[in-house]
Order: sequence, then structure tokens, then C-alpha cells
Amino acid sequence: MQGQNQQQAYDRGITIFSPDGRLYQVEYAREAVKRGTASVGVRTADGVVLAADRHARSPLLERDSIEKIHKADDHVGIASAGHVADARKLIDLARRQAQVEQLRYGQQIGVESLTKEVTDFIQEYTQTGGARPFGVALLLGGIEDGEPRLFETDPSGTPYEWQAVAIGGDREEIQSFLEEEYTEEMDLESGIELALEALGSVSEDGLDASGVDIATVDVESEQFTSLTEDDVAERVDEFDLEGEDDE
Amino acid sequence: MQGQNQQQAYDRGITIFSPDGRLYQVEYAREAVKRGTASVGVRTADGVVLAADRHARSPLLERDSIEKIHKADDHVGIASAGHVADARKLIDLARRQAQVEQLRYGQQIGVESLTKEVTDFIQEYTQTGGARPFGVALLLGGIEDGEPRLFETDPSGTPYEWQAVAIGGDREEIQSFLEEEYTEEMDLESGIELALEALGSVSEDGLDASGVDIATVDVESEQFTSLTEDDVAERVDEFDLEGEDDE
Amino acid sequence: MQGQNQQQAYDRGITIFSPDGRLYQVEYAREAVKRGTASVGVRTADGVVLAADRHARSPLLERDSIEKIHKADDHVGIASAGHVADARKLIDLARRQAQVEQLRYGQQIGVESLTKEVTDFIQEYTQTGGARPFGVALLLGGIEDGEPRLFETDPSGTPYEWQAVAIGGDREEIQSFLEEEYTEEMDLESGIELALEALGSVSEDGLDASGVDIATVDVESEQFTSLTEDDVAERVDEFDLEGEDDE
Amino acid sequence: MQGQNQQQAYDRGITIFSPDGRLYQVEYAREAVKRGTASVGVRTADGVVLAADRHARSPLLERDSIEKIHKADDHVGIASAGHVADARKLIDLARRQAQVEQLRYGQQIGVESLTKEVTDFIQEYTQTGGARPFGVALLLGGIEDGEPRLFETDPSGTPYEWQAVAIGGDREEIQSFLEEEYTEEMDLESGIELALEALGSVSEDGLDASGVDIATVDVESEQFTSLTEDDVAERVDEFDLEGEDDE
Amino acid sequence: MQGQNQQQAYDRGITIFSPDGRLYQVEYAREAVKRGTASVGVRTADGVVLAADRHARSPLLERDSIEKIHKADDHVGIASAGHVADARKLIDLARRQAQVEQLRYGQQIGVESLTKEVTDFIQEYTQTGGARPFGVALLLGGIEDGEPRLFETDPSGTPYEWQAVAIGGDREEIQSFLEEEYTEEMDLESGIELALEALGSVSEDGLDASGVDIATVDVESEQFTSLTEDDVAERVDEFDLEGEDDE
Amino acid sequence: MQGQNQQQAYDRGITIFSPDGRLYQVEYAREAVKRGTASVGVRTADGVVLAADRHARSPLLERDSIEKIHKADDHVGIASAGHVADARKLIDLARRQAQVEQLRYGQQIGVESLTKEVTDFIQEYTQTGGARPFGVALLLGGIEDGEPRLFETDPSGTPYEWQAVAIGGDREEIQSFLEEEYTEEMDLESGIELALEALGSVSEDGLDASGVDIATVDVESEQFTSLTEDDVAERVDEFDLEGEDDE
Amino acid sequence: MQGQNQQQAYDRGITIFSPDGRLYQVEYAREAVKRGTASVGVRTADGVVLAADRHARSPLLERDSIEKIHKADDHVGIASAGHVADARKLIDLARRQAQVEQLRYGQQIGVESLTKEVTDFIQEYTQTGGARPFGVALLLGGIEDGEPRLFETDPSGTPYEWQAVAIGGDREEIQSFLEEEYTEEMDLESGIELALEALGSVSEDGLDASGVDIATVDVESEQFTSLTEDDVAERVDEFDLEGEDDE
Repeated sequence: MQGQNQQQAYDRGITIFSPDGRLYQVEYAREAVKRGTASVGVRTADGVVLAADRHARSPLLERDSIEKIHKADDHVGIASAGHVADARKLIDLARRQAQVEQLRYGQQIGVESLTKEVTDFIQEYTQTGGARPFGVALLLGGIEDGEPRLFETDPSGTPYEWQAVAIGGDREEIQSFLEEEYTEEMDLESGIELALEALGSVSEDGLDASGVDIATVDVESEQFTSLTEDDVAERVDEFDLEGEDDE
Repeated sequence: MQGQNQQQAYDRGITIFSPDGRLYQVEYAREAVKRGTASVGVRTADGVVLAADRHARSPLLERDSIEKIHKADDHVGIASAGHVADARKLIDLARRQAQVEQLRYGQQIGVESLTKEVTDFIQEYTQTGGARPFGVALLLGGIEDGEPRLFETDPSGTPYEWQAVAIGGDREEIQSFLEEEYTEEMDLESGIELALEALGSVSEDGLDASGVDIATVDVESEQFTSLTEDDVAERVDEFDLEGEDDE
Repeated sequence: MQGQNQQQAYDRGITIFSPDGRLYQVEYAREAVKRGTASVGVRTADGVVLAADRHARSPLLERDSIEKIHKADDHVGIASAGHVADARKLIDLARRQAQVEQLRYGQQIGVESLTKEVTDFIQEYTQTGGARPFGVALLLGGIEDGEPRLFETDPSGTPYEWQAVAIGGDREEIQSFLEEEYTEEMDLESGIELALEALGSVSEDGLDASGVDIATVDVESEQFTSLTEDDVAERVDEFDLEGEDDE
Repeated sequence: MQGQNQQQAYDRGITIFSPDGRLYQVEYAREAVKRGTASVGVRTADGVVLAADRHARSPLLERDSIEKIHKADDHVGIASAGHVADARKLIDLARRQAQVEQLRYGQQIGVESLTKEVTDFIQEYTQTGGARPFGVALLLGGIEDGEPRLFETDPSGTPYEWQAVAIGGDREEIQSFLEEEYTEEMDLESGIELALEALGSVSEDGLDASGVDIATVDVESEQFTSLTEDDVAERVDEFDLEGEDDE
Repeated sequence: MQGQNQQQAYDRGITIFSPDGRLYQVEYAREAVKRGTASVGVRTADGVVLAADRHARSPLLERDSIEKIHKADDHVGIASAGHVADARKLIDLARRQAQVEQLRYGQQIGVESLTKEVTDFIQEYTQTGGARPFGVALLLGGIEDGEPRLFETDPSGTPYEWQAVAIGGDREEIQSFLEEEYTEEMDLESGIELALEALGSVSEDGLDASGVDIATVDVESEQFTSLTEDDVAERVDEFDLEGEDDE
Repeated sequence: MQGQNQQQAYDRGITIFSPDGRLYQVEYAREAVKRGTASVGVRTADGVVLAADRHARSPLLERDSIEKIHKADDHVGIASAGHVADARKLIDLARRQAQVEQLRYGQQIGVESLTKEVTDFIQEYTQTGGARPFGVALLLGGIEDGEPRLFETDPSGTPYEWQAVAIGGDREEIQSFLEEEYTEEMDLESGIELALEALGSVSEDGLDASGVDIATVDVESEQFTSLTEDDVAERVDEFDLEGEDDE
Repeated sequence: MQGQNQQQAYDRGITIFSPDGRLYQVEYAREAVKRGTASVGVRTADGVVLAADRHARSPLLERDSIEKIHKADDHVGIASAGHVADARKLIDLARRQAQVEQLRYGQQIGVESLTKEVTDFIQEYTQTGGARPFGVALLLGGIEDGEPRLFETDPSGTPYEWQAVAIGGDREEIQSFLEEEYTEEMDLESGIELALEALGSVSEDGLDASGVDIATVDVESEQFTSLTEDDVAERVDEFDLEGEDDE
């Protein structure tokens, strides 16, 4: 009870430090990320895979409108987990930054630069008063100088580069699965399989193709490509990940 | 009691995260939506139907002044549920955005774009201090590239696309009704019937034609059209939804 | 006691939602309206009647200075109930808007448009921090396109159109009286009688002509007209509404 | 005790509504007015009388420096009760407004217009955050279109017009005295006598000429005129209002 | 205890009214004045005397640096009591205002005008949020139109004119002494004696010439003149006010 | 418990002093620094060494993306400990300042000047409201006028110059190790060894070359140089610092 | 306990008065000064001496980087005690002011003027919200019109002029020592001795030359001069102030 009171003292008003040097509002924002469904990123030798769970609360809801994976630029995709409206704001920022780079310098923005533009923006919301942190984590995957790159942003505004990573609900379990199964030599198709298996590993009823969103950016085309529901279904079927009955 | 105290700690001042990653002010704004009377949207093969319950607290009140369905542009209608004055502010925004698109680019704004302009605006009120979130949900229905589209905005600023959806009081019951009765192949007239039946499904005394507001945007005309009270009455009668006595 | 504590948590600082989706500051502002003396509006076939109770706390107070009914423009009158100084601010706004319309477009502002300018202004004070809501309700009555119109604004910033309506102290009782006695076919003179009777229905000592302010806007002249105290006295006498002794 | 706690909840920070629709900060400002010594205004057939109690806390204090009655313009005087420094700010405003009218339109500002400029200013301090209300009431007396006018402003920003009125300490008792003794036909000299008697009615030791400030604006000259201490003494003597010994 | 709690409720954040119409922050600022050593002003027939106690906490402190009496303009001096840094800010304001008058209109600013510039400035700090009141009282003494004038400013921003007055610690006792001993006919030298005696009346150990600061503005020269420590010592000796030993 | 309550009173809202003259928010920010992994700086006769522990929470995390050592300018490196996103903001500032110096004056910024630009910026966040302090410490190492210089910035905004220093987790233990082992005459290679040994001194499992980031700025080249993982591994091996198994 | 609660009420948020007229935030800032090591100033017939204790927490810390004495201008030095980062901000201000004076008027700024620029700046931070007071005291020593001057600034923004003074930890004891030993006739060298003895008087282990910073501004050269560590060591030795072993 006392611990609880102490904790409450640090989450009112602006984001400030607790006596043990923590920023509770940022940690609570991380909880908001965990409340979202999971997204997974896998970097392979010939491209990056982004996959996201987007199961719907109603069969009448258009799954395409559950925005989990977005095209930021021709060569960069972004997957999100957490507070959807917050994600949209950051993705808008990323898109504008990519356009600005294109307009000003006539070149594609680097995936790392783009990630850091986003994390710098996120950091401001953890230090300056009058606003709350962003309750969302992002995965930015793309091609930079011919190499696949995969970055994560978290609510504190820290950038991380990954070989394979999960964000959102069940992050720990999915990340463990990735750590066990990932190999650096994987090709893109194996990356897709790994991403699907990772998402499926925490699903009691197996995967529903319509409930998974997948996109890739491959080294050859350097183009963001969304898989169709049929493409996904084919693989779910192939990898035998399908549940017994759709939700 | 303790839970209540804990909860209270997060709804004073600006919108901040609770330890479990929730934004209470946004959740309370959702309660404000539930306090409003219901609105229903149905997407059919040849158009979108918006229907709203607008029963009046006094027989001397002009029901037309209970604004639940609004024309945003020639080809888009908006139905609301929740805090009426908040709805007006968002609808004004939507109208201005539609006009700006028309003036700048000489074309109709897309229903999806329009929805996202609105949700981006809503999101700001959930993150930046000095204001409360909007206590209203909207349904935006219209024609885009010849296709009927139906979107929902909620107080968090998240956009959803639906085949058929209810917002406001009794949302859960009406949505269940829609899930059972909706079919993708419905024509506009069947959509109107479904919307009326859905609203009627939670009314103990049946529907009163003057207490329901209905509008459509059909694929052919791409025009927002309000049904007259007689039009509504005819259908209430036809579908045998009428209560025994008017309020 | 617990309920009281809970309630207190939501009325400090800015206007925010309570867990059940209510805006307490707006509801308290409605209480401020109820603390004011009543005003009544009646829409008749040939014009609109506004009537207001303005009994004075001292015989030395000039009743004309108890401002309850104001001319907003030649063709629109405004009656108020609640916090007088707040009313003055909104009426100033309405007058300026009417002038702007006249200057910019060379035409009279519509009664509905004018009402919505006022309610949009009121809404801002319920959402943005740093100010309290307006503790006043208004009745706007006038002629628009040759038709009598009667609108109400409440502290939430919602506009309503009425056939006949009461605001302020004893609103419920007076509204019930209006619902029983009002007919759509009434002429202006019957409207005046109804308004006087309605105000008298909650007065134990009958009406005092000097304590009632009446104005009309009729379809023919489209002019705001204040009744003189003699005009009022004549009718109070004729309708036998007079109390036994003046205050 | 509970009532007290409840009350305290509404007077911290900005001016907001209590659950029963009251603005406590405004009501407390009214208490600040009552803490001041009384001022009285009397409107007579041929002019307005302003009178104020300005007894000094020390015989070494120059009574002329206890500012209770001020000339706002040639034809308007202002008496105050309450927080002296707040009064000075409002009187400065009134003077500037009178000058602006003179400079812009080449004419004297009306007493009613001037009063409303002041009350509009006062209202802002009761609604917008970051400041407290004014703890002062004013009486504005002057000649407008050849007629004597007498207005009061209170801390809520409401204007009132009076035949005779008291503000400040002992307001109720003095107002009762005025209600009994005032007649509309009084001439200016009778008005002065009434004002002096009214102030004397609540003084146990009678009036001390040096402790009363009197000014008039008469219809003929339309000039603000301060009575000298001898003028006042003569009348105190004549009306037999003198106490047995000076303070 | 309850009284104390009630009191605490009104001194956090900005300056607001208590239920009994008091501004506690202003009253606490008055306490800050009482915590300072006393200053005395005496108006005589041929000039004004300002005197201040400036005993030092250490013999190594330069007493001249304990600023209690300042020259505001050639013809006006200012003595202070209370928070020294606050006093400096107000005296800077006064000096700037005197210079502005000189530059704009080529004339000396009146002592009364100057006082009111200062009190208007002080008032703002008692009404607008984001700052605390000034914890200082000032005495402004000088010659205006050939006449000696002596004004006081207090933390509420009220101006007072005095024949003789004390501010700061032991104000009540010194003021009583002045009330008994002051006569209007005094010449400047008698005024200096009275000021010294008044300061000495509350000193157990008599006066120490180096611990008293005295300045005059006489009618003839209209010049602010500081007495040297020798001048003061001579008078302390002459008036037999010296204590038995220096501090 | 009482002590805890007292403490809590000083960490809400802006950074203010506690009764014993401490700034708790700054002290809590120091705790945030301690929560980070350690960084070490060593100044040797022929250059400066920066070393940082960057062990990863997952084998799939790219260690290069755990940013602990940054190039600020050709001749200056910065190591950080604590809140990563905060560090990025300060390093951006340092880089911009270095560029500005280069652009304006055509010369390299001094290490001391650069440090003080950063600490002045940090100080603002400890005094002005509306933001929290930076939860990070930095080591700035470089060459200035041919001399190696090594500076530390802490969350209070104080600059320190060191011969050898540790920041972050286990600071006390590592600093003690440095105090025992450091000698002024060390060459760069010995400095690297000392830094590695110091980091290893608090590691139970020895050092993992991939988990340590090392950079130098030597007097001869005046160039910031990052050691490759192989370079590090070679030395870890040479100095026999390797743990038994990699994490 | 009650006293403690009462006290807590006045140190949250902005700097406000306590019921007894104190500014607790300013008093707490004075505690921050006491937490710093001591600095001493001595004014002699032929110059001013500034001396400061700068013992280091680690032998690896460059003592020169513990900034206690700064050159503000050629003819003025500043010693500080308390919060180091706050001191830097004030010293920057002083340097800028000295440069402005030089640039605008082609002359050296007076020591008194410079002190008052600094204290005016400090005062703002004790009155206006949104920031905390400065937790530092300064000694400004220099030559003005050929005379040595020595001033102190405290956290309230009050300037004091001294013959000899101590600030920071052990202020009371050192000041007592100065009061006993100081004589006005001292020459600069005796002043240095007095300063060293004063600092040594509170040191259990005697003085360590490297732990004391000394600077002078003499009347003849009017130049700020820092003593080298050897200069200091020579005098520590000569005056026999050395402790038995270095820290």
C-alpha cells in the first residue's frame, strides 16, 4: 500500500524522476504498448520482414482498417504496437521527414536517420511538461545502402537496432522464440515463416490469415511490399499454423 | 475503495497514463459517448446508410434541432453519438477540410482521408495538456472512387472501417444485432431496414418515425440524402417497427 | 460522503470527464442557470415572444437595469437566465456577429446561424483549460426567411430549437405548463398570454407588471419590439394574473 | 466541518463553479467589499450625490488620501467600497474609457456605457484563469442626456441602476434606511442630507465632517463637484448628525 | 488547528480571496514588512524627514550598503522596510518613472503621481497569477508645488498620505509615539529630532549614530539631502538618545 | 515514514529546494545515471580513452545500436551513462555547437568550452519549470591546444575535469579502482588497458569484447577513433580479462 | 510535526510568503549555499583578496576544474559558494554586463553596479513563478575609482558591502574569526594571510595548498590576479597552516 502511494506521487502532472531514478509515465507508456497486439520484425540476408497481429473485435470491422503496418517511404515500412492514434502521429512524422529528405537532397532517407528523427521527437514528450509520452513502440524496417536494417523505437525515445524483435503484447515470449529460431543466414521467405511462427507461438487457436498483416522490403527491389491476404493464407497453410476455427 | 482512489489519481489535470497503461480521461470520454443515444451505420453494395435515434425530452423540442446526422460534403455524411457540442466542433472541422480539398485540388476529399484528418485532430486532445478529450464518436459514411465506405472515430483518435457499426448508448446490443443480421450483399433499402431494426432492437416501445433520423449516400448519385419524416414513417410502418404509442 | 468526495475530484482546475462520462463543471454551470429567475420563449404563427421574470431585490433598484431581454439585431431578441455578467459577454458576441454579417454580406444573420456562433463559443469554454464554462442559458428568438424561430443555448454549448421553452429557476414546472397549454396555431397575442401565464404559474403572489420584461419579433415587421410596462400591466390585468400586492 | 471542506474545494486556483452553481471566489470578493467602509449614492431630480465614509486609522493620516470618491470625467463621479488598490485599477480604466470616447467621437461617454465597460472588464477576471476577481464595488453617478443616472458594479461584473444605494460595510442597514427615506422628488440638497443621514444611521458616535467625503454631479452644470470639509461640516451641523466627540 | 488548516488553503499558488474576503498572501507580505527594521517619515512645515534604522549584523558589514533610504529624484526620497531585494525593484521603477516624466514633459514628477505609479505596479502582483506580492512598504517624501508631501505604499498597493508615519518592525509603538509628539508646526530640525526620538523609543540600548540613516527634502532647496554620520551623531548626542554602548 | 513523506513533497511539479537545500529532482536524475551501465574515461600523456559497457539484453540486439560512445567532432568524443534518449539530446547539442564554432570562427571548439555549453544547457532544466532535469552524465574527451582533456557533466549541470573517471552503475567501485591504478605518465595503450580493467573489475563474468565500446582521441592525430570489436577482443584477450562464457 | 506540515505548505510550486512573512524557498536556497565549501573575501587598503576552499572528492579530479573563483572583468573577481551550476549562470551574466558596459560606454563597470545587476537578476527568481531561486552566494571583489570594494549577493537578491566576509559552509565560525582578526589598515599580503587563516580555522587537518584557490585585485594594477599553487603553498607554509598530511 505504501509502495503504491509512493508510486502515485510520480505520475501526476509532468514526467518527473522517482527517487530511484525512474520515469513512471514512460514506464506506464510501456504498459500501453503491452496492451496492444504484437508486431514482429525479422532482418534477413535479402530483406526485412514486418508482421503484425491485427485480430478484430467484431467480424464487421474491416481488418485493413486496423493499421499495424504502414509504408513510410518506398524503401521503409513501419509496424506499430500500442496506442493506435499515437502511432499514427509518429508515422505521419516519419513520412514527412522522408519527403523532406527527398525534396531537399534528392535522396532516400536512411533507415537509421529516420529512426532517430522519430526517437528525438518521442524524447521531447518525456522531458517537457504539458504533454504525456507516446504510448506506442514502432519497428522501422527498410533498405539502406543496399543493406537491410531493422530498428525499434520505445516510449522513452531510445533507438535500438535488431536482427529480429517483437513489440507489444506477449513480447517476452515471442522474443524468446525468435532468439531460439533466428539465424542470420535466413532468406526473406524464411523470415516470413519465422515471423508467422513467432506470432503463432503465443496464439492458442493458431493463426488466421486475415488477422495477420505482413510486409517486406527486399534488397533487390528496395520496395515496400504488402502481402495480400491470400499470400498470407497460403503461407499459414503451408507452415501449418492455421487454427482449428476462425474467430 | 482503494481501486477507486487509485483511479482518481489519473483523471485530474492533463491526460496521463495509469500504471497499467490506460488513459482514463479517454476512457471516461468513451463513457460520455455511451451516455448519448445510439447511431448506426450500414455499408451496402449500392450505398451507405446512417441512422440515429433522436428522441426528444419534450414534445415542444424541434426534433430537427437534435443534430445527430450532418452533411459534411455532397458525398459524405456524419452521424454522431455523445456530447453534442463536441460533435459540432469536429463536424465543423470535417466540413472545412472537405472545402479546402475542393478549393485546393478541385476534387472531393476521400472518406478515409477525411476520417483521418478528424482522428488526428482528436488525438491531439488526448496528448497535449490544457484541454480534455472529445466526448463523442462519429460515423463517417460516403462514396470514394465509386465505392461505399463507412468509418468510425472514437475519443482516442483511432479510425476504424466497418461494414456495419453502432456507436453510443446500447452499442454492444445493437452491434450484436448487426453482426447477426448483416450481409455484404444487402442493397441500400435493406440497409435502411437493418439500421431501423437495429435501433428498434433496443427500444422497448418500438420506433417513432419522428424520433429517428436517416440519411444515405448512394453509389449512383454520390449525394448525401436525408429521408423525410414521412419516408421514415413509411418504412417503420412497413417493417412493423412502430411502438404502440408515441412518446 | 464517498460520492461527494468522488465528485469533488472532478471540479478542480479545468473541465474534465468524470468516470461516468460527465463534465461536472458544465453541470454546475447548469445549476448557476437554475439560480437565476426564469425566462420563457414562445413561437407562434406570426412571431416569437420572449418573456422574463425580473423582480428586484430592492424597490430602489431600476428594474430596467435588470437585463433579461436584449435586442441582438433588428430581427432577433435574446432572453437570458443565470449569471448576468456571463450573459452580457455572450450577447455582446451575438451582436458583433450580427453586425459582421450585415457588414460583410449586406444581409441579416439567420437566427440558427447566430445561435450556432454562440454555442461554438460556449463549447470552447467547456474543453480548453484556463477558464470556466458560462453559467448562463439563452433564448434566441427572431424571424428567418419569414419564419419565426426560437432557439436555446445551454452551458454545454448545445443548440436546441423549440416551439416553447423555459430556462432558469423553476424550469421544469414552467416547461410542463407550456407543454400542456401550447398549441402551434397560437397567434402572437396568445403567445404573450401563454408566456405570462407560464411565468405566473410558479409565482405564489401573482405577477407584477413591472417585474416582467416582454419582447416580441413578429413576422410582419421583422422588428424586435419591447412591451412597455403599461402594455404588460394591461395584459396582466386582462389575463387576471396580478398578485394581491406588489412586492 | 464537512460544509467547510466542501467549500474550500472551490476557492483554490481559478474561479470555478461549486456543485450548487456558485462562484465562491466572487462571493469571497463580495466579502472583501463588505470589509470596506460604506459608500452611498442618491439620485435626485436635479443631480446625483455620492457620499463615502473615510474615517482614518490614525489622526496623522491625511484623510484626503483615503480615496473613496473619484472624478472619472467632468460629468461622472465614482465612489468605491472594498479593496482600495483594486478600485484604483478600475477607476483608471473608467478614466481612460472616458478619454477615448472624448478623443474618438468628441463627446462625453454615457454613464451607462461607462458602467458597462467597467463590468465587462470585471467579468473577465471571474471567468479566465490566472487572476482573482476584483474585491471592490463601485457607484458611478453622473448626467447622461440631461438626466441623472446612478449605477453600481459588483465583483461578478453585473451592472445595476439605482435610485439610491449603499455598498460596503453595513450595506443592508443603510439600504433599508434609504428604502424608507428616499423619495423620487428629492432635490440635490435633500439628497445630500439623505446620504449623510444614511451613513450616520450606522455610526454609533455620529458623523465627523472630516470623515465623510461628498461629491455631486448636478443636471444644470453637468460638473463633478467635491464638497469641502467645511461644506460637509456645515451640513452635519445643520442636520444635527455630529457625534459627541471626534475619533 | 482547524483555523490553521483553513488559512493554509488560501496561500498556495496564486493570490486569491479567503471566505472572509481577505488576501492572505498580501497579509503575509505585511508580515515580511514587520520583519524588517523600522523606517520613519515626518512632514514638517519646511520639508520632509526620512529616517531608518539600519543596524548591522556584523561590524564588518558596511552600513552604507544596508540600503534603507534612496534618492528617487532630486526632489524625492524613498525609505523602505521589509524585503530588501523587493524594495530595490520598486525603487528602480520609481527612478525610471521620474526620469521618464523629466524626459517627456521636462518637469519633475509629483510625489503623489510617483507614489501611485508604484502602487499600481504593486497591485498587479496581488491580482495576477504567477508571482507573489511585494514584501515591502515604502515611504516617499518630497516637495510638490512647493509643499512637502509624505506618502506610504503597502503590499496591497494602497497609497496613503501622512503627516508622520512609521513602517516596519515596531510600527505600532513608533506610530503611537509619533501621534503623541507630532505637531503640524514643526520645522525640519524638530522633524529630525522627532524621527530620531521615535526610532529611539523602541530601542532598549539607545541609538547608535552609525545605525541610523537620515535624509531630508526641504522646501527651499527642493533637494534630497543625506545627513552624514557625523550630522546624525551630533543630533543623537544633542537629543541625548545615545545608548550606553554601541552594538 | 515521515522522512519519506517529507521527501515526496519536493519532487512534484518543478525542481525546487528541500528544507536542507537539496534539489531532489536532480538527485533522482543522478539515480537514473546509476541505473545505466558504466562508462570510463582515462586521460593519458598522448591521448584520451573513452570506454563503455554496452552489454545487450538480447543476443538479437545489434550492440552497435546501444549508443554509449559518440563522435562529437573530429577531435572530441562523448561517452554517456544513464537515460539514453536524454544523452542523444545533449550529444546533438554538442555536435551543433562544434559545427557552429567551425562555421563561425573556422576553428575547432575547445573541449572545455564545449563541456560548458552542455552544462549551461543542463542547468536550465534544473531551474526553470515545465521540464525535468536530464537523467544522464557525459564524459567529453578530446584534444585542446595539443593537450588531452577529459571532462564530466552531471545532471546538476556542473562541469568537472578529470585524469580518470567513471560514470553510471558501480561508479564508486570503478572510481576506486582507477584511483589505485592510474598514473599520470601512462601512454594511450596503457590507458586502454586501465579502462578495460576498470570495467572488468565490477564484472563477475569477465569482459566480453562485443560488450565493450572503446574510442580514443590521440594527441598526434587529434582524431576520434573507434576501436573495432576485433581490436577490443585482442586486448581483452591480451589483458586476460575475458570471462568464461559470453552472456 | 505540525510545524513541519505548516512549513511544507509553503515550498511547493512558486515562491510565496509564509504566514510569518518568510520566503521558505529563499531560505532553503540559503541552505544550499551552506552545503557548499566556504569562500572568503577580505578588503585591504591596497586591494581585495578572494579565497576559496576547493578540496576535491577524488585525487583524480583536476582541482582547477572546481570553479570557485572567476575573473568577471580585468578589475573584478567573483568567488562563489553553493550550487556550482547556478553560480556559473550568474557569473556569465556578470561577464556579459561588464562587456556591455565596456562596449557601450568605453569604461569599466563599477563593482557596486555590477553587484546590483546580479542581485536584480536574482530577485526575479524569488518573485516570479516558473523557476526556483538561485542556490548560490557570490563575493564580488574589485577596484572602483581607485578604491577596493567587496560585495556579497545572497539568494534573496540582497547586495551587501563588506570589509571582510565569509560565505558557504561554516560561515558563522569563519565570520567570527574575521571579526576578531580583521583590521582596516591591513595590506594585501596580510589580507591573503587573514583569508588563509580564516579558511584554516575551520579545517581540522590544516590547509592543503592545492585545495585553496586565491585571487587578488590590487589598487595599483587594477588587475585580477590568480595565485599559482606554488604561491599558495609558499604562504601556507610561511603561515604554518599546513595540515599533517594531504587528503
